[in-house]
Amino acid sequence: VEKVRKLTTEYLERVLTNSRPYSAQGKVADYIPELSKANPQALGITIATCDGQVIAVGECDTKFTLQSISKVISLIRALEDCGEEAVFQKVGMEPTGDPFNSIIRLEALNHHKPLNPMINAGAIAVASMIKGKNVEERFQGILSLLKTMTGNPKLTMNEEVYQSEKKTGDRNRSLAYFMKSTGIIETDVEEALDLYFRFNSINVQCSDLAKIGCFFANQGKLSNKQEELVSADHIGIAKTIMLTSGMYNASGEFAIHVGFPAKSGVSGGILASVPGQMGIGVIGPAIDEKGNSVAGVHVLKTLSKDLFLNMFRT
Amino acid sequence: VEKVRKLTTEYLERVLTNSRPYSAQGKVADYIPELSKANPQALGITIATCDGQVIAVGECDTKFTLQSISKVISLIRALEDCGEEAVFQKVGMEPTGDPFNSIIRLEALNHHKPLNPMINAGAIAVASMIKGKNVEERFQGILSLLKTMTGNPKLTMNEEVYQSEKKTGDRNRSLAYFMKSTGIIETDVEEALDLYFRFNSINVQCSDLAKIGCFFANQGKLSNKQEELVSADHIGIAKTIMLTSGMYNASGEFAIHVGFPAKSGVSGGILASVPGQMGIGVIGPAIDEKGNSVAGVHVLKTLSKDLFLNMFRT
Amino acid sequence: VEKVRKLTTEYLERVLTNSRPYSAQGKVADYIPELSKANPQALGITIATCDGQVIAVGECDTKFTLQSISKVISLIRALEDCGEEAVFQKVGMEPTGDPFNSIIRLEALNHHKPLNPMINAGAIAVASMIKGKNVEERFQGILSLLKTMTGNPKLTMNEEVYQSEKKTGDRNRSLAYFMKSTGIIETDVEEALDLYFRFNSINVQCSDLAKIGCFFANQGKLSNKQEELVSADHIGIAKTIMLTSGMYNASGEFAIHVGFPAKSGVSGGILASVPGQMGIGVIGPAIDEKGNSVAGVHVLKTLSKDLFLNMFRT
Amino acid sequence: VEKVRKLTTEYLERVLTNSRPYSAQGKVADYIPELSKANPQALGITIATCDGQVIAVGECDTKFTLQSISKVISLIRALEDCGEEAVFQKVGMEPTGDPFNSIIRLEALNHHKPLNPMINAGAIAVASMIKGKNVEERFQGILSLLKTMTGNPKLTMNEEVYQSEKKTGDRNRSLAYFMKSTGIIETDVEEALDLYFRFNSINVQCSDLAKIGCFFANQGKLSNKQEELVSADHIGIAKTIMLTSGMYNASGEFAIHVGFPAKSGVSGGILASVPGQMGIGVIGPAIDEKGNSVAGVHVLKTLSKDLFLNMFRT
Repeated sequence: VEKVRKLTTEYLERVLTNSRPYSAQGKVADYIPELSKANPQALGITIATCDGQVIAVGECDTKFTLQSISKVISLIRALEDCGEEAVFQKVGMEPTGDPFNSIIRLEALNHHKPLNPMINAGAIAVASMIKGKNVEERFQGILSLLKTMTGNPKLTMNEEVYQSEKKTGDRNRSLAYFMKSTGIIETDVEEALDLYFRFNSINVQCSDLAKIGCFFANQGKLSNKQEELVSADHIGIAKTIMLTSGMYNASGEFAIHVGFPAKSGVSGGILASVPGQMGIGVIGPAIDEKGNSVAGVHVLKTLSKDLFLNMFRT
Repeated sequence: VEKVRKLTTEYLERVLTNSRPYSAQGKVADYIPELSKANPQALGITIATCDGQVIAVGECDTKFTLQSISKVISLIRALEDCGEEAVFQKVGMEPTGDPFNSIIRLEALNHHKPLNPMINAGAIAVASMIKGKNVEERFQGILSLLKTMTGNPKLTMNEEVYQSEKKTGDRNRSLAYFMKSTGIIETDVEEALDLYFRFNSINVQCSDLAKIGCFFANQGKLSNKQEELVSADHIGIAKTIMLTSGMYNASGEFAIHVGFPAKSGVSGGILASVPGQMGIGVIGPAIDEKGNSVAGVHVLKTLSKDLFLNMFRT
Repeated sequence: VEKVRKLTTEYLERVLTNSRPYSAQGKVADYIPELSKANPQALGITIATCDGQVIAVGECDTKFTLQSISKVISLIRALEDCGEEAVFQKVGMEPTGDPFNSIIRLEALNHHKPLNPMINAGAIAVASMIKGKNVEERFQGILSLLKTMTGNPKLTMNEEVYQSEKKTGDRNRSLAYFMKSTGIIETDVEEALDLYFRFNSINVQCSDLAKIGCFFANQGKLSNKQEELVSADHIGIAKTIMLTSGMYNASGEFAIHVGFPAKSGVSGGILASVPGQMGIGVIGPAIDEKGNSVAGVHVLKTLSKDLFLNMFRT
Repeated sequence: VEKVRKLTTEYLERVLTNSRPYSAQGKVADYIPELSKANPQALGITIATCDGQVIAVGECDTKFTLQSISKVISLIRALEDCGEEAVFQKVGMEPTGDPFNSIIRLEALNHHKPLNPMINAGAIAVASMIKGKNVEERFQGILSLLKTMTGNPKLTMNEEVYQSEKKTGDRNRSLAYFMKSTGIIETDVEEALDLYFRFNSINVQCSDLAKIGCFFANQGKLSNKQEELVSADHIGIAKTIMLTSGMYNASGEFAIHVGFPAKSGVSGGILASVPGQMGIGVIGPAIDEKGNSVAGVHVLKTLSKDLFLNMFRT
């Protein structure tokens, strides 16, 4: 029996083939029309290793919006803008078994602080802290951070998704006004929401996610470069929160069965980062009821086992 | 500036000295008389490395009861007895921002499944699954597992603590009868509680915790031995759950600032494990309002930073 | 059109006939085997007016257990034993939209006080306050109060129901131990539960409920007698709480559509009292999902409208 | 001992004098600047009996805004506009022990229906159902209903209070957007909120409340007139909901100690109605922590006892 598998295109093709059937267990998100048009059978994997290798298999040219994956990027932006202390005065660090859009804990907890930056309330609070003269300038800050991490200067926002998010965002609006009423949000509510909807609507491909994951694995540096472009401390915080809270209500299960930091979005994308080793980007639009790409999770489970990537089993 | 510090007795003495004053910020637990007698200023650290080194500084001969630290051991026992699937049919894998003795989620969640094995409800459910003809036999199973992990054949239960736990355990009794009513507990409620109270009452020292942590770091093997005494998979599960949920409501914060698996108890003990490197046992009876040793957490933060032990920053 | 209908046996027979088909919309309770044996089509109505008239139609000789109807009687007993102030230090006066066996509010509310004596937690707390050397003596106190109110010296407990209640009472046990842990229950938990299960298991007939309702309508006096056998103040409290909280989660709706105090039980019995006018006892074992007799509620709605009994519409 | 007291100006002066000191136990509401300017010692009582008598004592010319008292009026308006069935499809009839501005139940309950029209969420849902071409026309509908009930053609809105309510209304905005997201609110959210804030800001005096209470006591007719101006059924519904839910989280206690329908507002006003007998208007701006006028509640307790007005003790 082959014990350690080698990371080759052939190997990754096999993982893709074995994982594809899992798409049938999920459904494409349909709360906005744009998401529902995605191909449920699509599956793409890109791996970018810390030593500069890039392997891509499957439908890697599929474009999809960041959705909740943007929560990690906006957290890092806010940490760079305001510092760890200021950010965590408004949002907690604790994982939660609550649904991503729950309002219950906001009301029940002392100080009405959202439990962490990976749930909607926390991410909206984070968006309200990002610096910039106006919404446009703040948005460009995030976009520019993303361009740095991915090395992709062409990233843009999907205007249709943004308009749909804005139109259907009443639950998020409710969360935001609640936080305004308790003092968690100190700036303009509609601007924070606008920014939050824009972040969710940025278009990416698997390769972009893989590059971001690799940037995280490199602790804020581009592969083979010495310069720390983002504070390693802030990247460390992001990776930790991804591990404890990155996969919605299945974060604990994912940590046990996969064992490295990842963040998913309802578009079916997953951004994963194996410390010191590689970044992984997966797209598989068919998601389970918790919001995670079914085939995508299967890909990461397989890679974790085959390549001994689980941080808790070495 | 010295960047990487070497793990020596002198270095550890310095960490001890710098951490001792933090005891003043905590209080000794007093819900049972036995715990309240502990010396709040006591502080002891033992480190057992995977290459066989053992260093101990401070009040390492202090005896204290496992309390919640036992939740990790009983989880492993149940996994060995019943297998992963059976255990996680009755208890979840998800971290939670709830207090350790909360009953709210039990009622609100689908299937009334306790969120994870590190909260009281989850640990009582786990205790109800452990195999054995009677309570005594089941208890001896745990004790024998602990003796294996620690290499200490003299471990015993503290009878006074056990009696006190039993007498004041009405909140836990409430959790247990709730789970009986929903079918999570299928065996005798009073027996499950009795076993749970006994686990909490086992006497240990820092060195015992360090040895267990090292056993975990070695993935179920004793240092320098080849034989896997406990399934590496089960040890991996335990370490992952320790990271996401081991430090009560401060688990997320601890993961960010320390970054390796640990489990604390209200007696002031902390069991920590750095994968592939070492086990750490700390005792510092003055705990904060969340239940964690204040000086103990400071020790682990310092070690993590000085010795580059944070799993998310390498 | 006949506007005010006269209360005659013929009229009541018509109400019975019109209400009988509603049984088909409900189901007999089945959480204990004894209840599930009841005839779902049975329907009986007895009215006892303050001027001494008694009219009975339908299956009025059906025996059934008090179940939650006993909560009103034990509240009055506790008020007589300990006084209003002492009772309401341990249990609230506020209606609640929670299910009858909810534990959530116990945990979430300040002081962990059950919201009112009509939910299980409140009734168990009330049972724990009733005076008497032992459970038997306390139980006889309640039975003797019931004999006074009904004028029926033959009331007894249904032993099978009692044993079943006791055996399946884990949810109530959970509520009770929770209250023990928070100091709401100060006496022996198992004794309070035992008493509570016994109260629920007392056998009655429609005529008994009608007499109790009439005793309430007379403010603690037997019809045509001057002597106040129970404090009019305590009877007033009981009637008010019946109006705001007597019909489980449908209390508000019942108050709007019927408009006089009533208390139901899952056996299908309803005890109703029209201040200054009459007591009504109904039995109809087919209950809706909230726990109220479907045909029984229809009977009371009809009587309220036809006889202008709604306290809020006169 | 004088048993039944006669309702005279002298008697009412004595009640006023005895109740005045209770103001010291409360505080004037200060969440908007306009309310905080009220005189905490002010106390005024007006009684309007069904036989046409009007007695006023104390500071009855004090003007104050309706605040939550408007919830009763808008409920009646919505019932007249849409009918009972349509209204209660969107809002429940059940009393609740929750705080008036709680969002928890909205999320936890099936169908996300606000429990009743007396909590903020329920009242905003009710406002969203009121008919009219635009906000102004809907507002004039309410104002005109109030003018009919009070016989006071001069009622107006307090512009400063309205502007303040609007500016500080983020918690209510949160509730409203939540209900928009779940389909409870089907019309424009900002318009529903605007209307809700306007209702709260209508200026009244004690005599206006007494007249409304008398109109309710007369079941929708003006004293000594035969014409039913508002459906007696809708007035009955309003009175029942006032009894079970009109006094915030102290509704149950008020029902026990006073025993007739009443609705309070944080401005310190109370509107009360004794079926078939009288309407009572009280103003006393010092409120307790639940939101009810302390001296005002004492006035109503005294009147209930002295004049035998408790519906459950007759």
